[in-house]
Amino acid sequence: MPFTTELTRRFGLRHPVLSAPMGAVAGGRLAAAVSRAGGLGLLGPGYHDADWVDAEFAAAAGERVGIGFITWDLERTPARLDAALAHRPAAVMLSFGDARRFVPPIRRAGAALVLQVQTLAAARRAAELEPDLIVAQGTEAGGHGSSRALFPLLPAVVDAVAPIPVLAAGGIADGRGLVAALALGACGALIGTRFYAAEEAIGSDAVKRRLVERGGDDTVRTAIFDIVRKLPWPEPYTGRAVANEFSAHWHDHEAELRRALPEESARYAAAVTNGDLDTTVLWGGEALDLVHDVQPAERILLRIMREAEATRRRLAAPDIS
Amino acid sequence: MPFTTELTRRFGLRHPVLSAPMGAVAGGRLAAAVSRAGGLGLLGPGYHDADWVDAEFAAAAGERVGIGFITWDLERTPARLDAALAHRPAAVMLSFGDARRFVPPIRRAGAALVLQVQTLAAARRAAELEPDLIVAQGTEAGGHGSSRALFPLLPAVVDAVAPIPVLAAGGIADGRGLVAALALGACGALIGTRFYAAEEAIGSDAVKRRLVERGGDDTVRTAIFDIVRKLPWPEPYTGRAVANEFSAHWHDHEAELRRALPEESARYAAAVTNGDLDTTVLWGGEALDLVHDVQPAERILLRIMREAEATRRRLAAPDIS
Repeated sequence: MPFTTELTRRFGLRHPVLSAPMGAVAGGRLAAAVSRAGGLGLLGPGYHDADWVDAEFAAAAGERVGIGFITWDLERTPARLDAALAHRPAAVMLSFGDARRFVPPIRRAGAALVLQVQTLAAARRAAELEPDLIVAQGTEAGGHGSSRALFPLLPAVVDAVAPIPVLAAGGIADGRGLVAALALGACGALIGTRFYAAEEAIGSDAVKRRLVERGGDDTVRTAIFDIVRKLPWPEPYTGRAVANEFSAHWHDHEAELRRALPEESARYAAAVTNGDLDTTVLWGGEALDLVHDVQPAERILLRIMREAEATRRRLAAPDIS
Repeated sequence: MPFTTELTRRFGLRHPVLSAPMGAVAGGRLAAAVSRAGGLGLLGPGYHDADWVDAEFAAAAGERVGIGFITWDLERTPARLDAALAHRPAAVMLSFGDARRFVPPIRRAGAALVLQVQTLAAARRAAELEPDLIVAQGTEAGGHGSSRALFPLLPAVVDAVAPIPVLAAGGIADGRGLVAALALGACGALIGTRFYAAEEAIGSDAVKRRLVERGGDDTVRTAIFDIVRKLPWPEPYTGRAVANEFSAHWHDHEAELRRALPEESARYAAAVTNGDLDTTVLWGGEALDLVHDVQPAERILLRIMREAEATRRRLAAPDIS
C-alpha cells in the first residue's frame, strides 16, 4: 500500500521522503537520483556561489529537484537565490536565520516555500510566513542544528502550526524512523546522513567509509569546526560531526580555540588540502548507527520504503512485538 | 484492538506503559494508580532511605508495582534494595551506574531485572547481564540522563541487544509517541514527565502548575543542580530541568558555581525550605509541550491509549495525512 500524505500529494511523489540539502554534499546527481526514485531531492549549495548552483542544476539533468540554503549566509550573497530560481526548483528550503526577505521572490517564482526550525518558538514564527511546509529538525541531525530532540519536538510543532504540514528531520535513516515520524504527525521525512552514504553524494570513498564505520555514540554537537573556519554562525546553531582528534582536543574548550585561532586555522586549512579526516570536519547525525553500507540512492530509498511497509504491517497486527 | 507486545505478555499488562521511577515523585499512590489502570507503576525512592521504600510500598496498598533505583546511590546504602525486595516488586529497574553486584539478589527475589541505558555502548554492556528488559533513555527525558536522542538511539539499541526487549524512555507523553516508539522497535514506553503532572504524583500544586505552563523550549540539561546539592553524580549524567532563575544564572558557568559553593549551597537549601521554584530544581522533560493539564493517572493512561489507537488506525489507512 502506498504511503500517501500531504507531502506526496502536494509534490506528486511516490514516497514521502526528501533528501536533505547537505552543504557541498547534496549535488545534482544525488538530488536527481532521489527524485527519480520517487522522493524529492534537494541541492545543498552550502557556502558555494551561483556557479555551483548552476553546475549542480545542470548535473540534475532536468530532473525536478529543490534546493536548500543557509539563510544567514544567503543574506551575504543573495544573488544565489536568483540563480536557483532561474532553474525553476520544486521547492526552496531556508534554514538558520530570518527568512522574511526571501519569501516574495520564492513565491513569485512558483516554488514551494519550506522553512526549517529547531524549536517550538521558531516554528510559531515560521508559521506566520505561511510556508508550504515546515521542517522540524531535531538535535540528532548531522550538520547544523540546535538542541531540541525530534521525538517530543515534532508533535509539538505539528500541534502548533496546523494545518501547515510538517516534515521530520534528524535521526531518520530507515523505514522504522519514517513510520515513527508519521506516527508523531509528520507528513514525511527529510533524510540527510543516510543519503551522505549514497554513491551519488559528493564525497570521497574515505569519507563514506568513515560514515559506515562510526556510530551515533561517536558524534558530537559542537561549534569548534565553525570557529576554526571563521564562519560567523549565529546562536543557537552548532553542528553535529563525527568526533575526531580535533574535536576530542577542542570541544568544550572553545575559548582556548579562539585564542589559538591564527595557528589552528592555518593548520586546519592545511588539513583540508591534505584530506586529513582526523582534523577536518565530517558532518554526521546520530542515525549513523543505522548506516551500514554505501548504496545507490535509489536502493537506499526503496529499502526505506520496504522497511516502512513492514513496520506499518507490524503495527496493524494484533501482536506488535 | 489491544496493544499486545512482549512487555504486556511478560507482565500481564493491558497497556504497554510503565510509569518512570521519578525520584521522590513516583510514590505508592502514583505507581498503584498506573498499575490499576493497566500499566505498571514504578516507585522512585531517589536518595530516600529504606523507610521511604517501606512507606511507599504500603501506600501502593497491595497493588503490584515495581521500583527503580539510582545505581551509584544504591551502592552507598544497598540495604534499600533488600527492603524493596521484601515487598516482592514486579520489577527492579537500575539506572546510572554499574548494576552487576545487584543482579543476583534481584534474580533470587524473582523480580524482573530492568536496566536503563543512555548510549549504544552501554546497551551492549547491559545486554551481557541478560536483563529481562532494557530501557533506552533519550536526552529529551526529564531528570537524569545523558546526551543521545531517543529517535535514532532506540532502533540502534533494539538491533544491538535483540532478542532482549527494549522499552523507550524520554519525550513520550501521548499516544502518538507510544506508537512511534513501537514503530522504532520498542515493546512499550516508560513515561515520566506526563505522570509527574498526575494528581497522585508527590508534588505541590505549584510544581504541577508550572509543569503545565512551561514547554520543551524551557528545559535545560545541566549539572548545576547536582553541583549545588553536592551530589556526586558521575559523568556522563546530567539532569533535564525546567529552566529558572538559578539555571539562567549558573548553567554553562559550572566552574564559577563550584567556587561559590559555600554560599550558593546554603542559599539553595533555604530555597528548598521556602519552596522557591525560581531557585530549586524542577525536573521536566522536553515532552512538557504535550502536558496541558493535571489529571488522575488512570485518565492520563487511558487517553494515551485512545490516542495510540487512533494513530494506529491513521497509519493503516490509505491516506495517512
